[in-house]
Formats: sequence, C-alpha cells, structure tokens
Amino acid sequence: MSSKRVVLTGYEPWGHASENPTLDLLDRAAERNYPDIELITLRVPVEAGKITALVEDALEEYRPDVWISLGLYPGLSVIGIERTAANVKDFPVADNVGARPHDETVFPDGPFAYQATIPIKAIAEALRERGIPAKVSNSASTYLCNQIMYSALHLSRVKNLGTRAGFLHVPCSPKYVANAPYPEHEFPSMSLDLMSDAVDAAIRTSTERDTDIKAPPRGY
Amino acid sequence: MSSKRVVLTGYEPWGHASENPTLDLLDRAAERNYPDIELITLRVPVEAGKITALVEDALEEYRPDVWISLGLYPGLSVIGIERTAANVKDFPVADNVGARPHDETVFPDGPFAYQATIPIKAIAEALRERGIPAKVSNSASTYLCNQIMYSALHLSRVKNLGTRAGFLHVPCSPKYVANAPYPEHEFPSMSLDLMSDAVDAAIRTSTERDTDIKAPPRGY
Amino acid sequence: MSSKRVVLTGYEPWGHASENPTLDLLDRAAERNYPDIELITLRVPVEAGKITALVEDALEEYRPDVWISLGLYPGLSVIGIERTAANVKDFPVADNVGARPHDETVFPDGPFAYQATIPIKAIAEALRERGIPAKVSNSASTYLCNQIMYSALHLSRVKNLGTRAGFLHVPCSPKYVANAPYPEHEFPSMSLDLMSDAVDAAIRTSTERDTDIKAPPRGY
Amino acid sequence: MSSKRVVLTGYEPWGHASENPTLDLLDRAAERNYPDIELITLRVPVEAGKITALVEDALEEYRPDVWISLGLYPGLSVIGIERTAANVKDFPVADNVGARPHDETVFPDGPFAYQATIPIKAIAEALRERGIPAKVSNSASTYLCNQIMYSALHLSRVKNLGTRAGFLHVPCSPKYVANAPYPEHEFPSMSLDLMSDAVDAAIRTSTERDTDIKAPPRGY
Repeated sequence: MSSKRVVLTGYEPWGHASENPTLDLLDRAAERNYPDIELITLRVPVEAGKITALVEDALEEYRPDVWISLGLYPGLSVIGIERTAANVKDFPVADNVGARPHDETVFPDGPFAYQATIPIKAIAEALRERGIPAKVSNSASTYLCNQIMYSALHLSRVKNLGTRAGFLHVPCSPKYVANAPYPEHEFPSMSLDLMSDAVDAAIRTSTERDTDIKAPPRGY
Repeated sequence: MSSKRVVLTGYEPWGHASENPTLDLLDRAAERNYPDIELITLRVPVEAGKITALVEDALEEYRPDVWISLGLYPGLSVIGIERTAANVKDFPVADNVGARPHDETVFPDGPFAYQATIPIKAIAEALRERGIPAKVSNSASTYLCNQIMYSALHLSRVKNLGTRAGFLHVPCSPKYVANAPYPEHEFPSMSLDLMSDAVDAAIRTSTERDTDIKAPPRGY
Repeated sequence: MSSKRVVLTGYEPWGHASENPTLDLLDRAAERNYPDIELITLRVPVEAGKITALVEDALEEYRPDVWISLGLYPGLSVIGIERTAANVKDFPVADNVGARPHDETVFPDGPFAYQATIPIKAIAEALRERGIPAKVSNSASTYLCNQIMYSALHLSRVKNLGTRAGFLHVPCSPKYVANAPYPEHEFPSMSLDLMSDAVDAAIRTSTERDTDIKAPPRGY
Repeated sequence: MSSKRVVLTGYEPWGHASENPTLDLLDRAAERNYPDIELITLRVPVEAGKITALVEDALEEYRPDVWISLGLYPGLSVIGIERTAANVKDFPVADNVGARPHDETVFPDGPFAYQATIPIKAIAEALRERGIPAKVSNSASTYLCNQIMYSALHLSRVKNLGTRAGFLHVPCSPKYVANAPYPEHEFPSMSLDLMSDAVDAAIRTSTERDTDIKAPPRGY
C-alpha cells in the first residue's frame, strides 16, 4: 500500500496573544514520524491577503491526499470538527496587518458553501473512543479559519485534485487561560496532549477511510 | 405602490414543552394589521415529514414576496438572524412523531447550502436601532429550523418565484424559563413584546429594501 | 395596619457604561405610589469609600422595615436573589474613583458573612408565579454589591433596627446589549418591565411576610 | 522540621455517573509519596447523613495540619478554590440514598459561614505559575461539597485543632465529557494530569505557608 500525503496547517500567533496552540500541534504531529504518512506542516500567517495564495501553492506543490487545517477558538470547550465552509469573509476583528473585510466572498465565482470532505462523523467517533471531547460544528464562522477551509475545499475541487479537506477548531491551552485577563481567565481549555491525540485521530481516520460513517449527532 | 405579500411561519409546541413563543409571535404579527402588507401566518407541525410539502404548497398558493420562518432556540440570548441553510437533516433529537433522520439531505439534488435572501445585515441594524439584542448567526443548525429555511430557499429558487426567504431564531420566553427545570431554569429569555418588535422590524426591512447593506459583524 | 417603610437603592452608571438599569428601576418603583408603603429610593455612587457611610446615614434617618439594594450583573440571565453577603472587599476592577481594595474586610469586627433577612425563597416563588426568571444566588461576589448588602445587614443588626435587608442582582437591559461591543453583544438581557415587576414582587413579599417559606432550590 | 499531616478527601461516584475524577486524584496524590507529608486519603460517600460523622472521626483520629476536600463541579472550566462554606443544606438534587434536605443548617449552632483557612490566594497563584487555570470561587454552593467544607472548618475550630481546611472544585474529566449525553457533551473538562498537579500545588502551598498572600482577584 502506498503512502498517503497529508498537509496540516496551524496559525501564527494572533494579534496581542503571545502563543497559538496550533503551532505546538504542528510540532507534535511532526514528531510522530508516521511510517505510512508523508506529513507536511505549514505555519499560516494571520493575514487574509496571503491565505488563498498559500493554499493554492501548497496544493500545487504537494497534491495531498488529505488537508487538515487547525485553528484556535477561544471559548470553545471541545474539539470542533467543522462541517461547513462558507464563501464569506466577514471579519469581526482585523487580521494581523489590519485587514477587516466584511460581506465579501472568498472566491467571487465559488458556490455559497462546501461540506468538509474529510469524514467528520468518523473522526468524531474516533475522538470519542479515545476519550477526547468533540463535536461536529456546523459553522467555521466567517473569519480566517473559514477562509482557509473554504480555499482548500474550493481549490482542490477546481483543480480536480481529489484532496479530502477539513478543519478542526481547538480550545485554548491551559497555560494560556491560566494567565489570561478577564473574560478569558475562565475560558475552557484542553491539554496539548489531548489536542495532539485529536489531531492524530483526525489524520489517521482521514487517511484510512474512503467514506464517512452515518451517525446521529449528540447535540444542537 | 403595490402591496407586498409576506408569509410568516411558527412552530407548534415541541415535544414535552407546553408552549412555543413563535405561535404567540404569529398572533401578534397578525394583530398589527399592516396596511401595505398582506400577511399570511402559518403554524408548522414539528414533523420532518410534513415540512417540505407544507412549504411547497404555501409557496405555490401565495407566491409571497417575503418568507420568514421563526423558531425557538433554547439557550439563545439574542435574536439570531440566520445567514445559512444547509442541505442536511441531522437531528439531535426526534421530532414530534419520532422521526430522527441523520446524515440525510433535505433535497438530494440541491446545493450544499443557501444564503438567506432577506437582508440580514439590514435587519440586524434595524433591530439594534430599536434596542433589540440581535446577531447574524452563521448556522441554522441541522434540525427542523434548518429544514424549513432550506426548503423555502431551494423551492423559491427552483420555482423561480423571486421570494426573499430567511429565518429568525428566538430565545425562550420569560414565562417558560421561570417554570423550567434544570438546566433550562437559568436560560436567557426575551419578552414577547421585544420579540414581536423584532419580527416587525424583520418584516418591514425585508419588504422595504431591495438589497442588503454592508456592515461589519459584531462578534464571532 | 400601619404603613411599612422601604429603602430601595440603585447604582449610578459604572465606569465607561452609559447607563445602569437599576436607576430606571428606582424611578419605576417610585411611580407605583404604593398606598401602604413609604418608599425611599436612593442613588448610590460607584465608590467603595462612600457606601458604608451612605448606608449608615440612611438607616439612621429612615429606620426602614425593609432594605433592598439593586445591582447590575452583566452576563446574568435571571434575577439573582442573593443569600449571602461576605465580609470581603476584593475588587476585580476599580470603582469610579480608582479604588480597588483586595483582601480587605467591609467591617474589621464583623462576622465573616450574613444571610439575607428578606425572605429569599418566598421572593423566588413570587417571581416564578409572575413568570419572571429568577434564582437564589449563593454569592453576591466581593465587589460593591456585596459591600452594600453586607453593610445594610451588619449595621441594621448592630443598631438593633430590625430591618430586613437583601440584594437583587439584575441582568443587562436589552437596549444596553443591543449596542454593546464584544463580548457583551450577546449577553442575556431582561426587559425593564419584567425587572420592575420583579422589584415590586420583592418589595411586596418582604413587607407582607414575617418569615420565609421553605422550598427546594431549582439548580446548583 | 517535623512532617505535616494532610487529609485529602474525594467523593464516590454520584448517582448515575459511572466515575468521579476525585477518586483518581486521591490515587495520584498517594502515588506521589511525599517525603515530608503524611498523606491520608479518604473516599467519602455521597450521603448527607454520613458526612459530618466521617469528618468528625477523621479529625479526631488524624488531627491533621491541613484538610483539603475535592469535589466535581460539572460545567466548571477551571479549578475553583473555594473561599466560603455556608451553614446551609439546600440540595438541588437528592444524594445517593434519596436524601434532599432544603433550608436546613449543617450545624444548628454554627455561624452562618466560614472562610477557608487554607491560603486560597497563594494556591491560586501557585496554580497560575504552573499553568493551571484556576480561580477563587466565592460559594461552594449548598450541596454536599459545601457540607463537608463547612463541617471541616466548624469542627476543627470547635475542637481547637488548628487544622487549616478548604475545598477545591474540579471540572469534569475529558473521558467523561467525551461520552456524556446532552447537555454535558459540550461541558468543559480538564485532564487528570493537570488536576493532579493542582492538588499537589494546593497541598504543598497549604503545608508550606503559614499565612495567605494578598493579591487582586482576576474576575468576578
């Protein structure tokens, strides 16, 4: 059986925040040295203007079987496996260089939304089996996380690459919350060990399964 | 100027709950006796199997300029003006006759999602001007509320009716929360007066404006 | 039967916020013109250094049967009827003149805590009967709201006045949330009509009942 | 320097729940084999009728320098270091043998409340330094957790033992949330590793410090 190629992306620190756990998750994934997976990890700048080109270049260069992007969602309590990417850039706050588009599309000629092509229900089940709190989330919001997810789904389809793409939102790290000011000082958190296991489960499930399972959701 | 025709829908009580504020909102909207709007109010059963036919029949019969559906979202604290309807039926709980589809489409041949065609940002602005807490929400979830919103958007486009369609989620009523058991006994609520004003603002904005405004979002 | 005397207090606007719903609630209570209640409404400055003297002066001057203080609790979703005032000033933010005591007592020689002497369970029941979301809360926090509640309870006991004293926390007003920035833009709110009814129920219950009822709590 | 004696208590599983992370925390604390601390771990039944006698017997037998009780608080996102124990039994749900007292005291002749005598601010600071999300909480509620905390504080004072006593509330474990039904399936959680470090920091700080530090709180 041939090796699978996986691109995993994380974000550089956002704004004033001094860390972003997704970069640690890239490092931890790389350290796993998967024998049967060629893993490419990419650090993505928090700049709307650079994301689409970055995704396009990486898809062209690596032609991956699986594309999984990671993003921090302060306030989230469980791993959020995103179902939907919308063709919307509607930023509640500016990115790291001051851009704050609103009511704009990601691709003017793209459809209104894409469904993730990684097996989201199978990933949710794999996380539950490992004892990792998780849910399928129905919106990746309208910020940079949605933009990269939409870009990966749209471009892999337009280029006919067959890449399965998706997005995981992760909670704050404990260390961040322990030192954060109001109102983040009581935000939920998740240990890097557990988040790293979640990323591993998502990578394995996405490379091992051709189709998703059918399973009832656990909440609204 | 000719009169506009508006269909407004609400839900019958769900499951064990003894009330649904959306029915009160239908009554209150009817009592406004809009001089320039022909308002049709529809009570929708909490049955996945009946919703699509009900929407199709009403669109055929009334050919409305505007379609606004209302739904209760226990736990919501502000009016949620929905941006997105997904082609997904993935019910976290059964409907009133025990149906609980999961990982199914609303229309097998429909696109993955529609954007609301009522002017969501202009409605959000109108609500804010009236002092009513509101937000644009990026997911109508995957339950009956999403199903009726998707059906109205898909069928009005397929039938080329030009109907502007959308969905508002509303919080629990104070009376409901006052008598609810754990964990709903501390859920946020909104008075029927305020919710009714929100519906009025949505109807007026949707009938008076041809296009939406562009405005930055206020949160994630 | 002789008339009862009631002192009702509210806070002036806090910090940068342009309004405080408790002042509106004082006005609305005064407008009720209770035939059998002599109502004194007091506006309290957001200054730790002035509160104790203000309470002492008012208790001496009016010798009220009932003392009810009101305070805003941003983020609260239901009326919070406080059970406990602690002998602690531990301010998470500064007051309006920059004072921010921490780990200090309200009265160096007072007991660690007082229980409210207004009938909190009977008030909770009265609110529920009127359809107003409410709960008994077990901590008035350690800010100015706790300070005024502790002061009223301690001084009325030390002076042997027989005053029944207590505190109600109220949610944000809808108008405030409608115009608030992140993260308050999605905070729960309650209409002034409903909050005013809650204050009325608390005043009536506190003046009409000599003892509290016994009733199970509804949540944690 | 002589060895310190510490009693650490956890709860047996509550009701239908199949686990309680506090028992794991007892095991992990025991495994640390503190060279300079004599640690006694106690499993406490979820029965109001047994708690006071259990505390009294343990205080008599061990005469500990420090008493720390642990309890699960589903929905909590950070370690809650309790400041206050109230002389109130007001159970929102029944205990494991069906007892559900309301509006009763823990000790009829005790004061209304006690302040924790372990150094809560120093513990909060120690947790923050270790990167563990934590807060000082102002109410231990009115259930069994409050009852054991009040009992330990009251009895150690009445018996003049000089024991420093306190209580830590902990979040759900990730494993529990991963398999929990609505609404607990999205509750915050904390890894046992982190919770165990928090208990260690609380034990060390309570045995090493004679007095608490003064420090501003971080939230409401």
